[in-house]
Amino acid sequence: MALGIGDDCAVLRVEPGSDLLVTTDMCVEDIHFKRAWHTARSVGHRCLLRGLSDIAAMGGTPTACFLSLGLSETLSAKWANDFIAGLLGLAGKFNVALAGGDTTKSEKVTADIVVLGKVPSGRAVSRSRARPGDKIYVTGMLGGSAWLLKRLMAGESVSRLSVQRQFCLLPRLAVGDWLRERGVPTAMIDLSDGLSVDLAHICKESNVAAELWSGAIPVERGATLEMALHGGEDYELLFTAPAKIRVPPRIEGVPVSSIGEIRPAPNKAARVLIGEQGGKLRPLPPRGWEHFSKRN
Amino acid sequence: MALGIGDDCAVLRVEPGSDLLVTTDMCVEDIHFKRAWHTARSVGHRCLLRGLSDIAAMGGTPTACFLSLGLSETLSAKWANDFIAGLLGLAGKFNVALAGGDTTKSEKVTADIVVLGKVPSGRAVSRSRARPGDKIYVTGMLGGSAWLLKRLMAGESVSRLSVQRQFCLLPRLAVGDWLRERGVPTAMIDLSDGLSVDLAHICKESNVAAELWSGAIPVERGATLEMALHGGEDYELLFTAPAKIRVPPRIEGVPVSSIGEIRPAPNKAARVLIGEQGGKLRPLPPRGWEHFSKRN
Repeated sequence: MALGIGDDCAVLRVEPGSDLLVTTDMCVEDIHFKRAWHTARSVGHRCLLRGLSDIAAMGGTPTACFLSLGLSETLSAKWANDFIAGLLGLAGKFNVALAGGDTTKSEKVTADIVVLGKVPSGRAVSRSRARPGDKIYVTGMLGGSAWLLKRLMAGESVSRLSVQRQFCLLPRLAVGDWLRERGVPTAMIDLSDGLSVDLAHICKESNVAAELWSGAIPVERGATLEMALHGGEDYELLFTAPAKIRVPPRIEGVPVSSIGEIRPAPNKAARVLIGEQGGKLRPLPPRGWEHFSKRN
Repeated sequence: MALGIGDDCAVLRVEPGSDLLVTTDMCVEDIHFKRAWHTARSVGHRCLLRGLSDIAAMGGTPTACFLSLGLSETLSAKWANDFIAGLLGLAGKFNVALAGGDTTKSEKVTADIVVLGKVPSGRAVSRSRARPGDKIYVTGMLGGSAWLLKRLMAGESVSRLSVQRQFCLLPRLAVGDWLRERGVPTAMIDLSDGLSVDLAHICKESNVAAELWSGAIPVERGATLEMALHGGEDYELLFTAPAKIRVPPRIEGVPVSSIGEIRPAPNKAARVLIGEQGGKLRPLPPRGWEHFSKRN
């Protein structure tokens, strides 16, 4: 898409027949990451991951990113370089050009990432078309990020490998694209805030309710159901599809689980219910990922 | 351009025959503004102004903006609301939709503004096509922002009106558009860092040198030539045009001054020279706007 980096602005050409996708995500030191816990590379990776995951949730393809970066003067050049290397490493994997940005001074590291993407005109997958009777699906395993965060916050020793693995997830772009191409999802969102919160977003935008089957939720090894429901930052895709469509158990190598069903809009507030399939259901209040600073 | 706000992403349609312009600008409290000096409204205005001015410098039309905003929990809701009101007030003047963004916690107010714009395909005005013999022009009056800043930093009393006037400048979109439509500029940039710095950018990108005529620089009332040359944040347009093109002294109601001439690239480092027209010239080192925190 990029024609080349301009000067006051970047100049980009959008393919005819494509809509433009735009998402922005701001990451702040001690709110979204801690320098004591996370390597500069993993922070750069994570910042871009958030934007790429949003593009995946629309069924789109990322094309370019822009980075506005605030850094303190006391920060080492190595930290900044490693941050950029982490970001560019992930960008390169998905053919995304770093097309511009801004830099400034800031006491805390502050990175705002803008990701542009494309999707065939009129085909972006929104959150608003889930219908009663649709099945609810999720990719991958949930709760891993919450599990890691809990251990880090408890001061437990966690191998560098575990931190890297959980913090350096890959966006589900291939799955999102596969689903959108085949017209499978009626609604889709990425799991950044937590299943209970993100599913509530779909319910609200689609004006429906949802029933989750607790035994069907794919819980990451070591994590609890609670972490899988409310943990957030799993960057998996949550989507709904008509019951008559057969959704395979693996898409582009990623496991896909059927975890519940969309119901008609409720009279009362509780939009998301949980329980055993066919058993008694209880309301699942949206309660998701909280910033580090709140938990401390 | 906007089809509507999406959910994980905004979905926008770019007109066929147009290129997309993208610019990002990050504003940080105590670096780019001080809450003691600047009203929340004026800060919101100024943040967006920076992006709109970049679009003007490409000869483009702004279409949508995105705001990533970090706010501390101790900040009043009124401050945040006034900030948004200032931003939206300016956006409304130029028909720019606030199409999305992100919010987070942050100790210092941190606002990253992304502005999207459009320009007929292949017609964006870059910094790189100034040619020897071209005349150099600037819109408006220079040095006003530096004058105000100096008084504020010296603790002098400055009327609220002066602060508002200097901090709430309007982007030169109509002038940029007028110039681009008529194919006037060979190169263009907006004056954010200061004339000496921004002209050096044009010289570097175009691989030329420049001669400025000190008596021709339009200095704002109260300001000094020094402030006009190095002050920055004037958000006027600096452009070059072939000598054979007649550039009117006012465009869209804004005065335009002819302030110098482009010369062949020098053998030595100094790209920008200054002196009386036809008289002896001295090098003008690029020395522009510095963040508040450096000056303190």
